[in-house]
Amino acid sequence: MKIGIYGYGNLGRGVEASIAQNPDMQLVAVFTRRDPESLHIATESAQVVHTSKVLQWKDKIDVMILCGGSATDLPEMTPALAANFHLVDSYDNHSSIPAHYAAVDAVARENGTTALISCGWDPGMFSLNRLYGSAILPEGRDYTFWGRGVSQGHSDAIRRIPGVIDARQYTVPVEEAMDRVRSGENPELTTRQKHLRECYVVAADDADREEIRQKIVTMPGYFADYDTTVTFITMDEMRKNHSALPHGGSVIRTGKTGSGNHQVVEFKLTLDSNPEFTGSVLVAFARAVYRMAGRGDHGCKCVFDVAPADLSATPREELIAHML
Amino acid sequence: MKIGIYGYGNLGRGVEASIAQNPDMQLVAVFTRRDPESLHIATESAQVVHTSKVLQWKDKIDVMILCGGSATDLPEMTPALAANFHLVDSYDNHSSIPAHYAAVDAVARENGTTALISCGWDPGMFSLNRLYGSAILPEGRDYTFWGRGVSQGHSDAIRRIPGVIDARQYTVPVEEAMDRVRSGENPELTTRQKHLRECYVVAADDADREEIRQKIVTMPGYFADYDTTVTFITMDEMRKNHSALPHGGSVIRTGKTGSGNHQVVEFKLTLDSNPEFTGSVLVAFARAVYRMAGRGDHGCKCVFDVAPADLSATPREELIAHML
Repeated sequence: MKIGIYGYGNLGRGVEASIAQNPDMQLVAVFTRRDPESLHIATESAQVVHTSKVLQWKDKIDVMILCGGSATDLPEMTPALAANFHLVDSYDNHSSIPAHYAAVDAVARENGTTALISCGWDPGMFSLNRLYGSAILPEGRDYTFWGRGVSQGHSDAIRRIPGVIDARQYTVPVEEAMDRVRSGENPELTTRQKHLRECYVVAADDADREEIRQKIVTMPGYFADYDTTVTFITMDEMRKNHSALPHGGSVIRTGKTGSGNHQVVEFKLTLDSNPEFTGSVLVAFARAVYRMAGRGDHGCKCVFDVAPADLSATPREELIAHML
Repeated sequence: MKIGIYGYGNLGRGVEASIAQNPDMQLVAVFTRRDPESLHIATESAQVVHTSKVLQWKDKIDVMILCGGSATDLPEMTPALAANFHLVDSYDNHSSIPAHYAAVDAVARENGTTALISCGWDPGMFSLNRLYGSAILPEGRDYTFWGRGVSQGHSDAIRRIPGVIDARQYTVPVEEAMDRVRSGENPELTTRQKHLRECYVVAADDADREEIRQKIVTMPGYFADYDTTVTFITMDEMRKNHSALPHGGSVIRTGKTGSGNHQVVEFKLTLDSNPEFTGSVLVAFARAVYRMAGRGDHGCKCVFDVAPADLSATPREELIAHML
């Protein structure tokens, strides 16, 4: 299986590391908008190619893994590339998924490609667990908690405040809320009751720290609805203590069966590296896309459409004998 | 979707309760080897029918859910019924699954039926999580812990000891072992280090309790490899404190990505009623069997073959809009 990576940031490097763990896959090219000469990748056997030349690789790549951002990159990239490549993306703007789906589906059907969107862990593995939970326990309710982990979007929002040099924001689930959910209590929880936000900020020497703090904790859409703490640190402390990108969380489905028996299903991720785990999910689903495309199953797909056996490098008979 | 239940013990009642929670399904008949007149079921609109008359229902049932035992019932029942019905079973003798699969597959292919075997939570949802975990984190390891919950097989084994009137056996995972696994330590764990066995026994008045205890804790295959506690209780205490059938457990996959980052994936079930949860899983997969059969996807299937969207009563577009 010949794989291309389109975009080479944290996620692209995570995908590259995962491909190296899967002997049935080979990374053949990394596509970048930067000067290819300037980019050093870990895989010696793969080429670095400018995105403007991607069409020359149409017959040399089985599945393209898109590693652009959801805000501006993927809404353009995914439909454009779906005209010529089978692909996987990690589009994660939940409210715009139907529009993204429709745009990609039209192109993929017209061109006979298979394009799986919104893959990763949320959307992705968490979505799958919301679906399994609701299908098995229809009289129930699901809760998604995120963290403890770094939110790139919230960190970026802080960095845009004047006087901020660097920032890292951790999303922290409220343990007490999780315990109430796990107990089957079925609580109504406000945004504030589910998560805390911890911010670590490096400020310019002459910046007004109280003003920065106020701007953070009152920022609508990002922090205003949460209990938010702001801690000012030095650039040294930032580099030493906050350079990793851990994340994770839980999807908990609670339901009742029969004469009122509580049933609780929890799927929990504890990730040292968010981009490496996300990359690993994309790679497993790239294998499924390759197989689905080979069967002529074209159009836009999502994780809900993938039979789990298609994710594994292990033959189906062995899975049945040893993993079932 | 018209559903039949074949066998009406704890699991059959669990399936019946689940069907009542799914408005797109209707229980039309329960098949029993007992005298149908003697059997009272919860669903007033469904008929109770002797198993000898099952063929008369061939065109009146879309999917048959088999609720027999794995030891002697299902190895006969599933291939026999697959000649005439689309079906789901919960065959759980892990080491004999390939033989069961082959027997069912031959019949299902010859007769154009869809027969999904080994469904429930283990095998079933736990198998799915072993597969997802290993596909995403190929350099890793998985651990399955069961309990705290009642093992029917171990309870039965105690009941066969002379002088024992009733018994209940709880399988208990060792918390310390689970914590070591969750930490990413990748421990080698012996059988004894993973689970404890707690036995509650009602003995005859004239029975030698120490002899019973010795027979339990030294029983090969069941207890000899475990730290086992035996507590003698009265029949009253048994009824009051041990009449429920709770169970659950965890599948934990730990793996490394990139330059050694730990990633931990845990799927955990906490079930007040094992047969009701198992029944709920069977019902969700019966929906998928109905859809797969409708598409002409025949033969023997397992949970690995089912695209998750097929499990849900919610239309795919809504799943994509609201659950992805």
